[in-house]
Parts: sequence; structure tokens; C-alpha cells
Amino acid sequence: MSSTITHAPKGLEGIVATTSSICYIDGEQGVLAYRGIDIHELADHSNFEETCYLLWNGKLPTNDELGKLKVQLASERKLDPAIISLLRNAPRQALPMDVLRTAVSALSFYDPEEKNNDHQANVNKAIRLTSQIAMIVAAYDRIRKGLEVVAPDPKLSHAANFLLMLTGKQPSSTAEKALDIALILHADHELNASTFAARVTAATLSDMHSAVTSAIGALKGPLHGGANEAVFRILESVDKSGSDPVDYIKGMLAQKKKVPGFGHRVYHTEDPRATHLRKMSQDLGQASGQIKWFQISQKIEKFVNADKKLNANVDFYSASTYHTLGIDVDLFTPIFAVSRVSGWTAHVIEQLDDNRLIRPRADYVGPAYPQHWTPPSQR
Amino acid sequence: MSSTITHAPKGLEGIVATTSSICYIDGEQGVLAYRGIDIHELADHSNFEETCYLLWNGKLPTNDELGKLKVQLASERKLDPAIISLLRNAPRQALPMDVLRTAVSALSFYDPEEKNNDHQANVNKAIRLTSQIAMIVAAYDRIRKGLEVVAPDPKLSHAANFLLMLTGKQPSSTAEKALDIALILHADHELNASTFAARVTAATLSDMHSAVTSAIGALKGPLHGGANEAVFRILESVDKSGSDPVDYIKGMLAQKKKVPGFGHRVYHTEDPRATHLRKMSQDLGQASGQIKWFQISQKIEKFVNADKKLNANVDFYSASTYHTLGIDVDLFTPIFAVSRVSGWTAHVIEQLDDNRLIRPRADYVGPAYPQHWTPPSQR
Repeated sequence: MSSTITHAPKGLEGIVATTSSICYIDGEQGVLAYRGIDIHELADHSNFEETCYLLWNGKLPTNDELGKLKVQLASERKLDPAIISLLRNAPRQALPMDVLRTAVSALSFYDPEEKNNDHQANVNKAIRLTSQIAMIVAAYDRIRKGLEVVAPDPKLSHAANFLLMLTGKQPSSTAEKALDIALILHADHELNASTFAARVTAATLSDMHSAVTSAIGALKGPLHGGANEAVFRILESVDKSGSDPVDYIKGMLAQKKKVPGFGHRVYHTEDPRATHLRKMSQDLGQASGQIKWFQISQKIEKFVNADKKLNANVDFYSASTYHTLGIDVDLFTPIFAVSRVSGWTAHVIEQLDDNRLIRPRADYVGPAYPQHWTPPSQR
Repeated sequence: MSSTITHAPKGLEGIVATTSSICYIDGEQGVLAYRGIDIHELADHSNFEETCYLLWNGKLPTNDELGKLKVQLASERKLDPAIISLLRNAPRQALPMDVLRTAVSALSFYDPEEKNNDHQANVNKAIRLTSQIAMIVAAYDRIRKGLEVVAPDPKLSHAANFLLMLTGKQPSSTAEKALDIALILHADHELNASTFAARVTAATLSDMHSAVTSAIGALKGPLHGGANEAVFRILESVDKSGSDPVDYIKGMLAQKKKVPGFGHRVYHTEDPRATHLRKMSQDLGQASGQIKWFQISQKIEKFVNADKKLNANVDFYSASTYHTLGIDVDLFTPIFAVSRVSGWTAHVIEQLDDNRLIRPRADYVGPAYPQHWTPPSQR
């Protein structure tokens, strides 16, 4: 055992916690790559199912391998009736992220490999969880609106099936493509907080469902996945109040409020995901006649860029993109989970393939040892 | 933003991830103290409720403060009927830790302060979760055995009420005292993996229920809380097979198996908690006429100590202690959670009082960037 102690910067900033073969980031050049393949190439040419294969297996699939994975993902589009009951029984005020976290935790009761923590079992769980999380998000949205749960269609892609189950209608090819690209862009991002929570959980040799449940809990926070929802609340507020977007943001800054959707721990240049989402927000806005969300976003971006020297991150333009796709604001973060489960599970598999308990130390700054217990009457 | 990169040892061993005023550990001297007060003094003089107050508030309570906390804890001994339904609807093969994780996640639906993340709301949630987790563990054990859920008794201590709800009988004062001390000893342990998972989750500004749900998932693993269950499975196996305990362990070591309940990332000497649990295991064994579990444990301890130079940790003698108290082996880890929720919640409160996102980096060792996307036919 080592007795060397190293004091890390707050929040473990700049601390390399593990090696990983999954995600390459160059924060200075604005590069993000999965297994070495640039996110721009994947956004332009790949699809979410292929990206899942890449993340889980470390290489692009052959036609046969991709076909097989698509069949597996489609055949896992089923939820135990008890999970549907759990969604129905959740009180209507329950937050979608709280419901998703609870339902994913409950999936462990019904997983045929719950007690098996080997590599292949965890790949199987990754496939199941990817299909099931999309279904849970869509089904809960239907249930809370008093609508029928829509049956999945095994002939559809992951993105199209999700939109079908959410809206009850076959999506347009534009909507399918937009969501598919958004799912690719959000699939992984190295040791972001939710993925790190998943790895810390898995590293006790716990299990995939525990790890993904932890990740969903971490993703919920406004400093992480919750930011895309926070961005849209601002766009909405600007729109409702009729204020000038720049004045609105100046008001926030005057109150020392952080503007969500800007800045990133890792990127010192533009977040490469923002490049795609900005264009998608504009294209979808123009196609749907709802360009105002893009326009408000763009004004805010220009101002924050100039005034605070902060770049838009992945959350900023995903807000207007999802809204233009007709998705409710409190589903933005659950949809992040629909994508990121692919990365979480890839990281858990990698962690367990060469595991060590993740257990740092704290620097004790409390009352000096030894203090003493005294009888209550003497306190 | 800092661009300095530090490579940490695997598992963040020896990395100081945060300052903390909660738990003092001296791994060389075998010291564990909560808020500066040695665990030995607390085990000898305190009780679990007082220890909770100490962990949450940083000081021992006056008589009035302790009385008030006891009333609060007792008045939070209630579960929404939907939580009881969730426990009833879990399939009988569901693992108690999976059920506990799911039920705690579902508690968020009914928490009156779910959307409030301020200091006082989180202290209130700590109190509620401490009462509710004990009830969930006891109620699920009754339900899975086809027994009636036992109503809580607000006049009893936390330990006695738990035993009442578990067994349906008023516990003996010996049993109450033994469990109370076990709860004190397990209440906190600095940045152990489950507490770290809770802090990583909370640091996205997520919420207390998300953080405690993450912690339960991490605690489940056999490299963490799951070890006490693994220890008892060995004691049981030795007893059933009639083998000599030393031969049994030699056989495990010959198969390169790790013996659970020995060694600790932080202590290089005896785990101070083991000192108490060893004595408790012996005393309870003698009092109940079930001394064999202590005797088998002691033989294993002596051998592993001599042969592997490893000391027993908190998990080793908690196995025989809990068994002698009549607790089922698959409840050992849930009972760890019944105690550790006090520490998890104290750490979440501390994290949120001075928060920074916990987001380390990974060292990319995958296919060199840039790889390229190729059409499937060319792979």
C-alpha cells in the first residue's frame, strides 16, 4: 500500500483518475472522438446504434454485427408490466428524472442476469438498458399526460421508435435524423460527473443497474444534464416577457447568476457538439417556422461570448433543438440519459474489466483530534 | 481554469479529493473519530441518535437538542403506502439491496422538500431518510417472509425500533445495545466509496435522494458493504462442511481468492471498529450459546493475520455479530446502510455547503486520434 498523499484541486479538476480507451478529448483544440473517431464524422455518417456498438466494442461493426445489434436492441424493447405499474403509480408531480432513476433501479428485479457481473452479461445489460431507458422516458411522458402507452415498433431505428412511443406518430425523417444525431453527440464524454458516479459505484464490484442508477441521479443536477432544461427556462422567460435577450442576461449577471449552457471544465474553445447543435437548432427552426428559439439563443450566445469569454456548450443549443422537436422541457435531461446510457455502460464494462476500488481520501479540517465525549448535562 | 494535469494512482489511492470536517482517520495509529471524538468514546458512551446529531451538526447535542432530534426521528417513522406497495410488489427473488435502492429512490416522489436543496431542507431529509431506511429494511424482510409489517413504536430508540419492526418482538436490552453500538461504529468513514459516490452525485447540484440512492448502489458491492455478507457465507460454509477453518482459508488462498473482511485501503494497523465488533461477537456468542461463529472467526483471523499480514476490518466481526443477533445474512449490507445513511447525508450537506462539480479526467489510451469512419462494406 502506498502512503503517498497528493492534494487534488477542488472537484478533482485536472486529476487523471483512470486510463480509458473510450473517449478522446482535446480541450485546447475542441476535439471529441469516440474510440479515436471524431464526433463530426460520426454525426455526419453514423447512427446511434452503430455508435453504441463502437462504444461497447471498441470498433465499428461489420454489416452483420450492426444488423445483429439492431435486432437485439429492438427485441429488448419490452418492459415488465411491473415497471409500467411503477410508472402509473408514481404521483403526477414526480419529476421525470426521479421516476427514471427509480424505474431503472427496479429493472434490476427483472433482469435475467442481475447476479452476473461478467463482461458478456454487462454487454447484454448495456443493450437492455439502452432499449429500456428510452421506453421508460417515453412511456412515463404518455402516462403522466393521461395518454395510452404506445407499443414499440421493432422495424424502427432507436431514434424513430423513441419518437413514435413519445408522440404516438411515425416521426418525419427530419425529426428522426435530428434526434439520431443528438443521441450520437450526447453518447459519451469521458469522465463527466455521471459517468464518474457510475464508475465509482461499479468499482465496489456492485452491478450495472446500481451504476446506471447512480449516473441518472448525477445527471439530474443543473451543473450537469439538468443544464439543458435550465437553458430552455431562460429562453421561455425571455420570450414570455418580451425582453431583449441581452438585457435579460445582463439582469441575470447583475444578480450574480450563472448563465446555464456556457463554459465547460474541459473545453477552452468551442464545444464541438455545440457546432452541430447550433446548426440543427437553426435548420429545425427554419423548417418548422419556429425560428425564434434559435434567434433568442443566438443573441444570448453572442453576448455571453463577448462579455464573459465563455463558449456555448452541448446544453445550450440542445434546448432549442429539443423544443423545436416538440419535446417537453422536463424531458430534455431524461433524453440526455436516453443517449448517455451508451457511454455509462461502456465505462462500467471498462471499469470492471480491470477494476480497482475508487476510494480517495479527505483532508480533515474539523475539530482537532482528540475532542472528548462529555455527559449531556455538561454541554 | 487550470490546465495542470496530475496522474493519480489507480482507484485514486492517496489522492485527497476534498477537505472535510466530519471524519478523522489516522491509518497508521488506527484512529477513527467523528468530529474529533474517538470512536471508542462514542461506542462506550454515546448512542446512535446522538451520533447522528454530531455528524449532521458538528457538535454533541444538549439535552434539549437531543430530545428534539429523537422526537423528529420517531415522528418520521412513517412510509407512504405506495412505498409499502412497492416492497410488496417486488418479486420475492429481488435482492434486499436492490429493493432498498429502488425504494429510497421512490421516496423522492413523496418528500415534501424534494425540490429544495438548501442546508435546512437537507438536514430534514437526512432525518427522514434515516428513519425511513430502517423501516424499509425491516418491512421488506417481513414482507418477503410473508409476515405482517410491524408498526413502529415512537417510544423506542432507533436501534430498538428497528429490531421490533424486524422481529415483531421488543428486543432485549443486550440486543438493542449491541445493534446501537454497531450503528455508531458504521455511521461514517470519510470518503469510503459509497460516500464518495454520494458526493459525486450531489456535486452536480442534484439532490439528497439521488445521492443516497447512488451510495446504496455503491455499498452493495463486495469490495465495500457487501463484504460482511461474503464473510458470513464463508463462516457458514466452514460450519456446514465441518472443515478446519484454517484449511478452508488455505484452500481459498490456493485458488487466488481474496478473503473478505481483511485489509483496508486506509488502515495499516487494526481497524478500530474491529476491536469493538470482535468483543461484541464474543459477548453475544457466549450469552446466546452460539459461540461457534466467534470461534471460527477467531481462527480465521489468527491465520490470515499471521500468513497474509492482514488485519480484520469492520466487516469481519460484524458478520458473526449480526448472525448471533438473529439477522439474516442478506440483511447485513442493508443494515450497514441503516447506519451509514447518517454519514452519507452529513457528507452531502457538507458538499453542498461549499460545492464544486467533481469531474476528473481520464488518460486516453485507445486507438490513436484520428481514426476514421468507413462505410460498413469496407470494415
